[in-house]
Amino acid sequence: MTQRQVRAAVLLIGDELLSGRTQDINLQTIAKFIAPLGVQVAEARVVSDAPENIVAAVNELRARYDYVFTTGGIGPTHDDRTADAMAAAFGVNIGVRDDARAILEAHYKGPGGLNEARLRMARIPDTASLIANPVSRAPGFQIGNVFVMAGVPSIMRGMLEDVGKRLDGGAVVKARTVRGKGVREGDIAAGLEALEAGANGAVSFGSYPWFSPDGYGLHLVARSADPAALEKAASDLKGLIRSRGSEPEEVDG
Amino acid sequence: MTQRQVRAAVLLIGDELLSGRTQDINLQTIAKFIAPLGVQVAEARVVSDAPENIVAAVNELRARYDYVFTTGGIGPTHDDRTADAMAAAFGVNIGVRDDARAILEAHYKGPGGLNEARLRMARIPDTASLIANPVSRAPGFQIGNVFVMAGVPSIMRGMLEDVGKRLDGGAVVKARTVRGKGVREGDIAAGLEALEAGANGAVSFGSYPWFSPDGYGLHLVARSADPAALEKAASDLKGLIRSRGSEPEEVDG
Repeated sequence: MTQRQVRAAVLLIGDELLSGRTQDINLQTIAKFIAPLGVQVAEARVVSDAPENIVAAVNELRARYDYVFTTGGIGPTHDDRTADAMAAAFGVNIGVRDDARAILEAHYKGPGGLNEARLRMARIPDTASLIANPVSRAPGFQIGNVFVMAGVPSIMRGMLEDVGKRLDGGAVVKARTVRGKGVREGDIAAGLEALEAGANGAVSFGSYPWFSPDGYGLHLVARSADPAALEKAASDLKGLIRSRGSEPEEVDG
Repeated sequence: MTQRQVRAAVLLIGDELLSGRTQDINLQTIAKFIAPLGVQVAEARVVSDAPENIVAAVNELRARYDYVFTTGGIGPTHDDRTADAMAAAFGVNIGVRDDARAILEAHYKGPGGLNEARLRMARIPDTASLIANPVSRAPGFQIGNVFVMAGVPSIMRGMLEDVGKRLDGGAVVKARTVRGKGVREGDIAAGLEALEAGANGAVSFGSYPWFSPDGYGLHLVARSADPAALEKAASDLKGLIRSRGSEPEEVDG
């Protein structure tokens, strides 16, 4: 396992996520999309629409991680402040850009079409490149190692297709999950710790209890970029479940 | 609106949230629970189980906000490192505490009961007070202005009942939401910005598009701690929707 791990941060922007009005699902979508490309999410943050919060967070995260993925705040209304915040964070100018304006002009035709509010969505920081939006056209953008995407999940998902091509991934970390029924965390904790110690850092192990009307149990997860070590780990986890008198089942996720 | 705003951070701990294995719902639950108590979530972070990440995040957040709510990492397995990280963050010792052990002893009776792994859940930092767990008994704890809770949503929700009593809230920020059908953000952006400017900081306005098989539209949200200003804002939002030829509907959330 000599390949470098490529690490990313996700920055979710929007008052509605902090108030509880909106349940975020973008973090999970991004994490699952980039993992097979060899990029792991190492940290995530949720900040309000206040520009100073966006600037501080993105500057801290882009210095610390290989990539930063942001969602939210690039629409046409006054509370969409992400583009200006990114320009401020990178110390570049921002204005309506011809390439972005052309995309919007083609989309918003007829009366009341590309008005001043919608033209806000063509404001792109200097040096940024556009990210295609196959859903509603108004583009996202990449500036440096930061990918700025929409907050609406269907639009964000569409933008990821364009983002994915630009990622230079490293080692691909894969997971194997073994399910045991009628087994509790406290029953396998010592065994699991021994497996983690024996793997010498090549595998990380996690334990996640589940409860349902017909019983309870555990999902034991092994994660590794080393296929052979991961295969052994999955086999070891099954043995651990069997040692508690339960028949293990391998499941997705 | 002279009452102080009380601001909190939420710190979600767990590799499974960053890998995308688990979809977090605790942030939303916490935000909705504490808002009526006069505490607003101002920032949230998701960090891995690595102790150094937990320590750095909690120390930064507890200095910046009135309260910090953490979830995850207090179970019996080796990847549950939150309690030790909190002790390190506060510079206090940690060990099995009698009050926590008594709770677990009453719960885990019989053979294979309170083994060494489960006793990990009685490790509580010095100076911390326990948070009751009505679901699975193993307690959370409060240390300083930090509330350390379980990651399993049903357990976390149970712990919030005990946490709520301890919060000293400030101004209660309430929201009113107006739904308009067939209206797009670009159509009302200028009007919305004028409302925000006219409110002189007493109200914050947000715009959230929705799409469904039978159409599209907007949710316009006003948030304020001033009941009279909020009433006026809701009325203004309805007027804005009507000005676009759509009949507004007031909805929850």
